[in-house]
Amino acid sequence: MNLGIDDLPVRDELRGKSPYGAPQLDVPVRLNTNENPYPLPEPLVERITERVREAARDLNRYPDRDAVQLRTELAKYLTKTGHHPVGIENVWAANGSNEVIQQLLQTFGGPGRTAIGFEPSYSMHALISRGTGTGWISGPRNADFTLDVEAASAAVAEHKPDVVFITTPNNPTGTAVPAETVLALYEAAQAAKPSMVVVDEAYIEFSHGASLLPLLEGRPNLVVSRTMSKAFGAAGLRLGYLAAHPAVVDAVQLVRLPYHLSAITQATALAALEHTDTLLKYVEQLKAERDRLVAELRAAGLDVTESDANFVQFGRFEDPHAVWQRILDRGVLVRDNGVPGFLRVSAGTPEENDAFLDAVREVKKELDA
Amino acid sequence: MNLGIDDLPVRDELRGKSPYGAPQLDVPVRLNTNENPYPLPEPLVERITERVREAARDLNRYPDRDAVQLRTELAKYLTKTGHHPVGIENVWAANGSNEVIQQLLQTFGGPGRTAIGFEPSYSMHALISRGTGTGWISGPRNADFTLDVEAASAAVAEHKPDVVFITTPNNPTGTAVPAETVLALYEAAQAAKPSMVVVDEAYIEFSHGASLLPLLEGRPNLVVSRTMSKAFGAAGLRLGYLAAHPAVVDAVQLVRLPYHLSAITQATALAALEHTDTLLKYVEQLKAERDRLVAELRAAGLDVTESDANFVQFGRFEDPHAVWQRILDRGVLVRDNGVPGFLRVSAGTPEENDAFLDAVREVKKELDA
Repeated sequence: MNLGIDDLPVRDELRGKSPYGAPQLDVPVRLNTNENPYPLPEPLVERITERVREAARDLNRYPDRDAVQLRTELAKYLTKTGHHPVGIENVWAANGSNEVIQQLLQTFGGPGRTAIGFEPSYSMHALISRGTGTGWISGPRNADFTLDVEAASAAVAEHKPDVVFITTPNNPTGTAVPAETVLALYEAAQAAKPSMVVVDEAYIEFSHGASLLPLLEGRPNLVVSRTMSKAFGAAGLRLGYLAAHPAVVDAVQLVRLPYHLSAITQATALAALEHTDTLLKYVEQLKAERDRLVAELRAAGLDVTESDANFVQFGRFEDPHAVWQRILDRGVLVRDNGVPGFLRVSAGTPEENDAFLDAVREVKKELDA
Repeated sequence: MNLGIDDLPVRDELRGKSPYGAPQLDVPVRLNTNENPYPLPEPLVERITERVREAARDLNRYPDRDAVQLRTELAKYLTKTGHHPVGIENVWAANGSNEVIQQLLQTFGGPGRTAIGFEPSYSMHALISRGTGTGWISGPRNADFTLDVEAASAAVAEHKPDVVFITTPNNPTGTAVPAETVLALYEAAQAAKPSMVVVDEAYIEFSHGASLLPLLEGRPNLVVSRTMSKAFGAAGLRLGYLAAHPAVVDAVQLVRLPYHLSAITQATALAALEHTDTLLKYVEQLKAERDRLVAELRAAGLDVTESDANFVQFGRFEDPHAVWQRILDRGVLVRDNGVPGFLRVSAGTPEENDAFLDAVREVKKELDA
């Protein structure tokens, strides 16, 4: 039978929709999904296989449902790098930060409740809200993509959302949010109604500034979410985590699918955490390359948004999608996030960035001609 | 701050609830979660480490979002064992059949919609319904735990649910559902409103009868869900999958979290699928042991439910939880699912089953004394 999605009894709000996801194209230089361009070092690959071999010998058994060892090591990493003491009771882990966010929305959002984000921002916040039946409110942002604390606080006061998303550094713009802004929004959110404030720090290791983990002190309705996809160079692993008051960690366990995190995932993540120091050295290289991209794109006459992440937003183009295609024609895949006038490029290796810069300079010349 | 879950702005229906999950106790004989007692054979462990090593070298990249190779191999397995041709376009995979069910409920259930199951049955169907905002309807079952097709059809006609769960073999009772019953319920569900019927075949490889996969032919609103946790001896892997009309596979992609299935999970599952023939030999051993458990428990004077799964429901006890504790005191962990009068034991190795049978005979003598 030649039926389509709309011939099935799917929910009304899904009709006519397409699945989320960047095009997965096979091109020489892929700078479209903010992946870390450096493969894991071979000693880490070997350590992963050792730990996975051990886990595979017990694979007929369910995994540790509470991921005790993994959460302990994640807590140590946060304590060491976040200037704030974090224990296992503060940490929860799931299959990517997307699943962390889904569990938070199932617990604190859901039908009859709302969430707000300040757009353009990470589009999965809105999509996972839809997927969990949470109403989505699109909050404002300044023209330069910084957060307008007064306008944002006013939106929170007006809409009284149950969940407030603050992404820092913000994706796709790269913009960092200062601690004072987060504090002001937290106060606004608590004044409107007791709301959860989720600070999405997926890219924090690339920031010029520090993590906002210390703000957790005395703020039980604050959550900081993280991922091993970027700084740890492990996008293929799908390991996201959060830090928060222990009551939050208890609460998400009411909605988590039992045994959601496989024994193999736990083993692989533990191996990567043993190699933290090596992996963070790549972060320093990527920060330098990110700064170079900003400088060279500006030198080429482009409008570049200040970036604290491993990617750079650049424009302005009358027709960003046409520019995206011209860059792709030169073998370089960047991202068109639909932000009017702008495209986004992930920081790759120096060679990949050179290829990108060459391509974009050529395209710029064509556009100016 | 000494706060608990109820001090946070969690959803009202979560207040006072506890996380799902069997007690994870460290006892000599664990027969409580229907795990396969046989560790993976060493050649498969080696194959997993080989494939994981290869995947780890590309771990900085996101995994194949569509899991093309894995779905192709799962389709081949279903075609080979299910007496029905299945292609990649019919198959979807996720982190455990729990995530498959969650995605189905997000797509076809959710706020303002309802799902029905015939209880006692797999309790996660009700819990995931709650987690996705889907109303839950508890349908009837005969006193001997078989499905009463008339009563079940009447419940479907009355409540007009959007999703109908049929678990065969049923958990925790072990009861198989005949194809005629599934067909009758499918017709009832389509007559009430176009509803999705999900046949949960988590334990089908242990059944005396065949899979209901051939029923998919000409029935786009039918879904068969499966898992690698049981027959493949890979509970720690968390790999569930479904077979259905291609439109269903397209539809769940509207709610799936992008890149939900890690590269490591895909690699490990592919390795296990290479060893299907070896793994299915363990299934034959477990079926024989299951039949022995049924026979010996009956010989001991117990009331045993007919089983097509890798576990057996036995009773009747005035106080099943007290009996559960007495068996545990003898070093054997079985499951108290809350079915009045009954407990459930998973088929273990011959030695584990002997230990269980000795324990239960002793307890029976005490009870009869």
